[in-house]
Amino acid sequence: MIHRAALLACLLLTASAVEAAAADPARPVTPAAVLAAAPATDWAAIDPADLLVIDLAGGRRVVIALADAFAPVHVANIRRLARAHWYDGLAIERVQDGYVTQWGDPDGRKPLPDGVLRTPPAEYERPAAGLPLQPLPDPDTYAPRVGAVSAFPVAEDGSRAWLAHCYGMVGVGRDLNPDTGTGAELYAVIGQPIRALDRNIAVVGRVVSGMEALSSLPRGMGDLGVYTDPAQRLAIRQVRLGSDLPASDQPRLERLRPESASYRAWVGARANRQDSFFLHPAGAVDLCQVLPPVRAGVDRR
Amino acid sequence: MIHRAALLACLLLTASAVEAAAADPARPVTPAAVLAAAPATDWAAIDPADLLVIDLAGGRRVVIALADAFAPVHVANIRRLARAHWYDGLAIERVQDGYVTQWGDPDGRKPLPDGVLRTPPAEYERPAAGLPLQPLPDPDTYAPRVGAVSAFPVAEDGSRAWLAHCYGMVGVGRDLNPDTGTGAELYAVIGQPIRALDRNIAVVGRVVSGMEALSSLPRGMGDLGVYTDPAQRLAIRQVRLGSDLPASDQPRLERLRPESASYRAWVGARANRQDSFFLHPAGAVDLCQVLPPVRAGVDRR
Repeated sequence: MIHRAALLACLLLTASAVEAAAADPARPVTPAAVLAAAPATDWAAIDPADLLVIDLAGGRRVVIALADAFAPVHVANIRRLARAHWYDGLAIERVQDGYVTQWGDPDGRKPLPDGVLRTPPAEYERPAAGLPLQPLPDPDTYAPRVGAVSAFPVAEDGSRAWLAHCYGMVGVGRDLNPDTGTGAELYAVIGQPIRALDRNIAVVGRVVSGMEALSSLPRGMGDLGVYTDPAQRLAIRQVRLGSDLPASDQPRLERLRPESASYRAWVGARANRQDSFFLHPAGAVDLCQVLPPVRAGVDRR
Repeated sequence: MIHRAALLACLLLTASAVEAAAADPARPVTPAAVLAAAPATDWAAIDPADLLVIDLAGGRRVVIALADAFAPVHVANIRRLARAHWYDGLAIERVQDGYVTQWGDPDGRKPLPDGVLRTPPAEYERPAAGLPLQPLPDPDTYAPRVGAVSAFPVAEDGSRAWLAHCYGMVGVGRDLNPDTGTGAELYAVIGQPIRALDRNIAVVGRVVSGMEALSSLPRGMGDLGVYTDPAQRLAIRQVRLGSDLPASDQPRLERLRPESASYRAWVGARANRQDSFFLHPAGAVDLCQVLPPVRAGVDRR
């Protein structure tokens, strides 16, 4: 059983143990212990208005944090589609192993509601200026600078910035250029990062809860993982903005602020694993391994 | 639908089209077209004696290419366990989302057969000398040099080399040091690469067929994805070396030789996507995106 002993060791560490470890380099600091010791001020509540809540047939729920700062027109479309209840009754239609799970209108027949822009601009990147990127120290195969902004993994080249296709990131399906997709078809990355898609597609968010409902589905056996038999599709019961749900049903989630000392310490602990399981810490960590942690929040209603 | 048009474009390209494209840089060369055009001599049959064949309850089959050159004692143990039919009747016991699927003897009660070494050496890395590494051109976050050897992704630091924890790679579960695992517990990577585990565990192979049987299983809800209810476990019907199966049931697989011009061209096409879907080719590709392709082989029996 890999890691079981290491995990138990983490769980046994308390916040005071972490403080002691900071003063005593002989004592290991684990990623889990850093999170457990993070002060409440290092966590930020995620506004339910910025969450897209997908309820699937069978009762599973997927929650996506929307990235308005990166693809505002596409995200506005998605908000309109959710408010019009347009996604309700559609389905997951494609699950390609090691790649993506995609959902929407499999037959492309459902008319889009008023106010949804048919031809959004190509929001595949944005100016780097104005983004509070917290850069990671380690090199990246794909970009000169990478780091976190809010709950999201971001790459930039000095002038332009874009969201990276890490596990759980959500993008807008599209046809060939100049089509950019409306938001009627969405996908989530369920395997390795697909960084080749970065800057080629509008990325609109990140699954912050319920990822296993998308990743554990049967793979489609058609080209690109499409379900060849419509009976294999999984129906979408409803999609709502979190703020449009009854208060008792709204997701309460918190993200670790990338600006915080706790996030920096957590990244350091992920790169330099001191848990007793590890003989040879990697000494580095890649962007997709350090998406800002999200946890169940305190209900202050 | 992302990529559907691009895929169709790939499928329509013929080998002669690829040759023409080589002479005409205005014409796109896609990864699929490079593979379709690769001469038979660029492919190598995988010896069924080097394949571990896992037949699961329900009829699904997983095939693992064994990496004797990297963990010879652990692989020898696995061969002995398979030959003793020791794995038969055991189960998949742990599926941790975005991490690993693990199988073996959940309760750790089954005595190991004679000839299985209880305390193998820590085969977590090996001398780099003598390995025909085909280096990739792009930087890696974790190692100064990475590339392919046989069917496997390899990293090295100039003197030591090790297998990288990419999607589908298989390792040996172990307890804390100095335990190195016997091979009785194995896991496969089902999410993002887990490069932090590199050099900390014996990696013994790569799933080359049937990955979806491991990646699409229900996630375990216990710590580390362990199935809390034994009824959730998926039984292993039998595990055999490919060469021990009846000839008609032996997997016939071929791998693209990393030494070949076709592999280099394929890596180049993966890094610089010319398909009409792509506006902004990444210009780089990471190790875990270019594991040497494996395909169904020609049956020459």
